[in-house]
Amino acid sequence: MPDFDVLCIGNAIVDIIAQCDDAFLETNGIIKGAMNLIDTKRAELLYSRMGPAIEASGGSAGNTAAGIASFGGRAAFFGKVSNDPLGEIYAHDIHAQGVAFDTRPLEGQPPTARSMIFVTPDGERSMNTYLGACIELGPEDVEADKASGAKVTYFEGYLWDPPRAKEAIRQTAKLDIVFANSHEIKSLYQTKSFDEALAAIRKDCKIAAVTRSEKGSVIVRGEETVTIQATTIRELVDTTGAGDLYAAGFLYGYTSGRSLKDCGDLGSLAAGLVIQQLGPRPRQNLRSAAQLAGLL
Amino acid sequence: MPDFDVLCIGNAIVDIIAQCDDAFLETNGIIKGAMNLIDTKRAELLYSRMGPAIEASGGSAGNTAAGIASFGGRAAFFGKVSNDPLGEIYAHDIHAQGVAFDTRPLEGQPPTARSMIFVTPDGERSMNTYLGACIELGPEDVEADKASGAKVTYFEGYLWDPPRAKEAIRQTAKLDIVFANSHEIKSLYQTKSFDEALAAIRKDCKIAAVTRSEKGSVIVRGEETVTIQATTIRELVDTTGAGDLYAAGFLYGYTSGRSLKDCGDLGSLAAGLVIQQLGPRPRQNLRSAAQLAGLL
Repeated sequence: MPDFDVLCIGNAIVDIIAQCDDAFLETNGIIKGAMNLIDTKRAELLYSRMGPAIEASGGSAGNTAAGIASFGGRAAFFGKVSNDPLGEIYAHDIHAQGVAFDTRPLEGQPPTARSMIFVTPDGERSMNTYLGACIELGPEDVEADKASGAKVTYFEGYLWDPPRAKEAIRQTAKLDIVFANSHEIKSLYQTKSFDEALAAIRKDCKIAAVTRSEKGSVIVRGEETVTIQATTIRELVDTTGAGDLYAAGFLYGYTSGRSLKDCGDLGSLAAGLVIQQLGPRPRQNLRSAAQLAGLL
Repeated sequence: MPDFDVLCIGNAIVDIIAQCDDAFLETNGIIKGAMNLIDTKRAELLYSRMGPAIEASGGSAGNTAAGIASFGGRAAFFGKVSNDPLGEIYAHDIHAQGVAFDTRPLEGQPPTARSMIFVTPDGERSMNTYLGACIELGPEDVEADKASGAKVTYFEGYLWDPPRAKEAIRQTAKLDIVFANSHEIKSLYQTKSFDEALAAIRKDCKIAAVTRSEKGSVIVRGEETVTIQATTIRELVDTTGAGDLYAAGFLYGYTSGRSLKDCGDLGSLAAGLVIQQLGPRPRQNLRSAAQLAGLL
């Protein structure tokens, strides 16, 4: 039996989250809804203009690992922090969630990564990420036992940004399942039609799970198509982590041998919970929430 | 015209907030609902046992200052952080809220104070505070211009813990208005009856505002008694900051010349908002919220 259901690899980031209006994004040249990479100087400028904030561990694949563990799955994580207070917070949070995380912290500079996330009244999040120590994640950080002892290895798309991380991915990855949102697949296949993009990704991946915000998601595997409803929510607060938590629910279901329908429903549940709070990792226990919803 | 409506003096603390069940408090010897002072060793132990957390600037008087500024009042704050990342977060958040905060940070050790706050399912918060740099707040940190240029000087009761802070208080304080909750006044006057305690505090203070959780609050001034209703809330999430925000609303009203009834209603409004979220400072703009409620 493998030691882990899912090994997640990604940028280890502490989120700094504040609400703002759309005018703030425009004034500061922040592309709405996007992940904007920033350098130290811009980080200082934006922070000086940012409203009162809260801090929470984030990063796409780390959020997914935390979600899987919250469902009761066995998750491991590779990601680089520095040996500084934000790095300690990051390590604390992911350990406290029950994720195996042993990547050696960087000694000294650059500091632990942080992403200033501005949440507009419509719940959309606009991220401004200073990668810091993440750029030092490299092949030497691949722990062979964890890499070989996991049913699924998952890595976030943002990992193509820090240069050396690609090598770490290449040592572990086979692209069987792709998670994307509808904008991403349309951009990937350079088409304006969602259906055309879906037809294309169906040919390129064994499984693709494509999220469509309030329209739910579509999962394709060969000729098979499974349509998943979004869950009903009370109030949209902050979309940060929606895709990450969808992946968490899906992969927890997938590695416990469930149907694609069940995987998608678990993904929808987790995504629906995280967007009703500020911050990227649900504060509810996801296993209990899934049991309450009759999904486990 | 004074430069500030309210000068607040208190412990400058970053809160580390996690949810837990009552059994956790018992297992770890944490007195429920209390502020437990802890040392470095206990801080490390508790943090190692704490679940995934979020971080947010806190501290009683700092929360009050932030609340006053959010109402549109002019607030200043004295409090000691260290020149470390948590200290930067603290300073950022209070500045971003529009509070004048210029206390010189401590160079080096001890680090910025943090309070591990455990929130139980009933919304009660149990605080475990490592005072860190706060113990270095002293008379030399009193900025004379701010102390003389404020209509009201407000200090938190927790300031009696760090030894040198008492001297800073003595340089600025005349005890005209006392904020307390019903447990505190009963404890102060060693009586089991709320009414007896209220009769006693009525004689000792010019004004006393006593909060009673869901029963609202009672304000006494000489023979005058004003009863304030608690606001209706949707869901009690976390009581952290309730008293601090009540004081913020009250003092904003008081320094803008409003009636005791209006002061109490503004306090109730702010307290009612902060207890419906995780974290000690409301994320809504309090001025807008008060206008919406017809209070401003």
